[in-house]
Amino acid sequence: MIKIGIYGYGNLGKGVEIATKLSKDMELVGIFTRREPSNLKSQTGAKIYSCNYTENMIDKIDVMIMCGGSANDLPVQTAQMASFFNVVDSFDTHAKIPEHFENINKICLKNNKVGIISTGWDPGMFSLMRLYGQAILPTGKDYTFWGPGVSQGHSDAIRRIPGVVDARQYTIPVEDSLNLVRTGKNPDLSVREKHTRECYVVINSDANPKEIEEKIKNMPNYFSDYDTNVYFITQEELDKNHKKLPHGGTVFRTGCTGLDRTNNHVIEYKLKLDSNPEFTAGVLVACARAAYRLSTDRNYGCKTIFDIPPAYLHERSNEDLRATIL
Amino acid sequence: MIKIGIYGYGNLGKGVEIATKLSKDMELVGIFTRREPSNLKSQTGAKIYSCNYTENMIDKIDVMIMCGGSANDLPVQTAQMASFFNVVDSFDTHAKIPEHFENINKICLKNNKVGIISTGWDPGMFSLMRLYGQAILPTGKDYTFWGPGVSQGHSDAIRRIPGVVDARQYTIPVEDSLNLVRTGKNPDLSVREKHTRECYVVINSDANPKEIEEKIKNMPNYFSDYDTNVYFITQEELDKNHKKLPHGGTVFRTGCTGLDRTNNHVIEYKLKLDSNPEFTAGVLVACARAAYRLSTDRNYGCKTIFDIPPAYLHERSNEDLRATIL
Repeated sequence: MIKIGIYGYGNLGKGVEIATKLSKDMELVGIFTRREPSNLKSQTGAKIYSCNYTENMIDKIDVMIMCGGSANDLPVQTAQMASFFNVVDSFDTHAKIPEHFENINKICLKNNKVGIISTGWDPGMFSLMRLYGQAILPTGKDYTFWGPGVSQGHSDAIRRIPGVVDARQYTIPVEDSLNLVRTGKNPDLSVREKHTRECYVVINSDANPKEIEEKIKNMPNYFSDYDTNVYFITQEELDKNHKKLPHGGTVFRTGCTGLDRTNNHVIEYKLKLDSNPEFTAGVLVACARAAYRLSTDRNYGCKTIFDIPPAYLHERSNEDLRATIL
Repeated sequence: MIKIGIYGYGNLGKGVEIATKLSKDMELVGIFTRREPSNLKSQTGAKIYSCNYTENMIDKIDVMIMCGGSANDLPVQTAQMASFFNVVDSFDTHAKIPEHFENINKICLKNNKVGIISTGWDPGMFSLMRLYGQAILPTGKDYTFWGPGVSQGHSDAIRRIPGVVDARQYTIPVEDSLNLVRTGKNPDLSVREKHTRECYVVINSDANPKEIEEKIKNMPNYFSDYDTNVYFITQEELDKNHKKLPHGGTVFRTGCTGLDRTNNHVIEYKLKLDSNPEFTAGVLVACARAAYRLSTDRNYGCKTIFDIPPAYLHERSNEDLRATIL
């Protein structure tokens, strides 16, 4: 049995807790939190410890799954834990991945640990699909569409506007553009042609909706380059209809082959997820299995999904996989 | 530069010839054939040799890409060549993969070679998607649909009927079933509910079309479990409209997560290929790159796509991939 620890007990940590239970080769040893453990109750009866207690668990945990946020938690926490445990995280600030990689790699190599970083679905499975697509069809084009789904970052940006009480933002891929890519015609698509943004917003009774709508639609980086729709709703409606965290998206590789490049090919990988954190948790747990196996191989250091032989992610033996699903 | 040889010069070998040219890190050294080389001309000006000449090329080729058929050629040819070269093949008789693997593994280990077998899209990319899907969503269901596309095996079966001159069979996935799977409802689907078969058949002028149609529709294994449509056409029509080899298909993994398993997830991987052999060639060439790198690591023996760290397939460095597509 692979002994698992969970560091951080928000939506992602809760997803990992359940995903661990679904894996027959894993045992959840404990959940570690910065909050006061006695105030928390786990979903499955798993023990909750203070994050200060991790050093007492060095021999009891094979892989620590890091479930903090990318902005502030993971750069610090994954680095701290990689001295003591094999670690897996979902660090998703794409621009800072090389820096995070170098840092974790140094710590892992010094302590004979494996650290798998930046896994989940993007970065993660979507990255893998870009890699496989480019490798198979070197003469071609990549497309990544996100959604339909909730963007936490965009929802937060709306909530920072004075007068806004709560908000939920959905990223919607433009169906006509998806279909155009599917034809294999390799279109050039602008930011606006790829996604629209739908905002459900709760405001104070004395706030000016017209003004808030303009502020949202003109917000640089987040909204100004997109067709954006704003809907004002009550807090009750938001709580009732918009509290789930669905997400997903589609990665395409289109390319042509043949002596005169007249044969077109379209590779499409699509995710439709009722729960973004629970699906991400599934990827993290599969990677925890790989981290354990890599450490058994003494193949230490920082890794990403690009480095992992796929069979390392699966519970069953390679021989069994060859006989049944190859 | 990775020095490539091609063994077998049919549709697949021709696809590999062009795919090699599209890879900047590869050089095509020669094509080897059982036919008389002086009767053949390559598409790109590459040299064509007799297959008896391979032993003279031992130091000149890093990876031999095997392009024979699975039924009779590859079990013998891949085994022969694995004594002298790193090899890659697309052996696709699923039931015999474990036997082929054991055989090639023994030869590779004895000769310090790498052999990557059974790669392409099924087995190959579809197998990978089944593996990743099961690893991420262990509580779930797999679906593989093939087509729309030409099935060579089914076309051959029709051609063996007396009175038939030529035939082309298309495998068509049932659209309603695809859409049902996409809902995440995990339906149980019979063979008939998943695919239909469309047959374009040229017959002798004195043959009885009614009789031939019945023979096709009642052929066990190939057609009797399916809804099959038969269309009689002229040789000219067949040559004009049905000489291409399109194919593709869709692999799904559907599964649920959450404490009470109420969140559904759908992973869909879809291929739409104008040319089955040319796309397969793209996968073989990427695997040839991996075979070369594995042999540089002295990681000898037989491998499948399940064993290959994804980054080994891509031309660019792992560092570069992390910075750009992770």
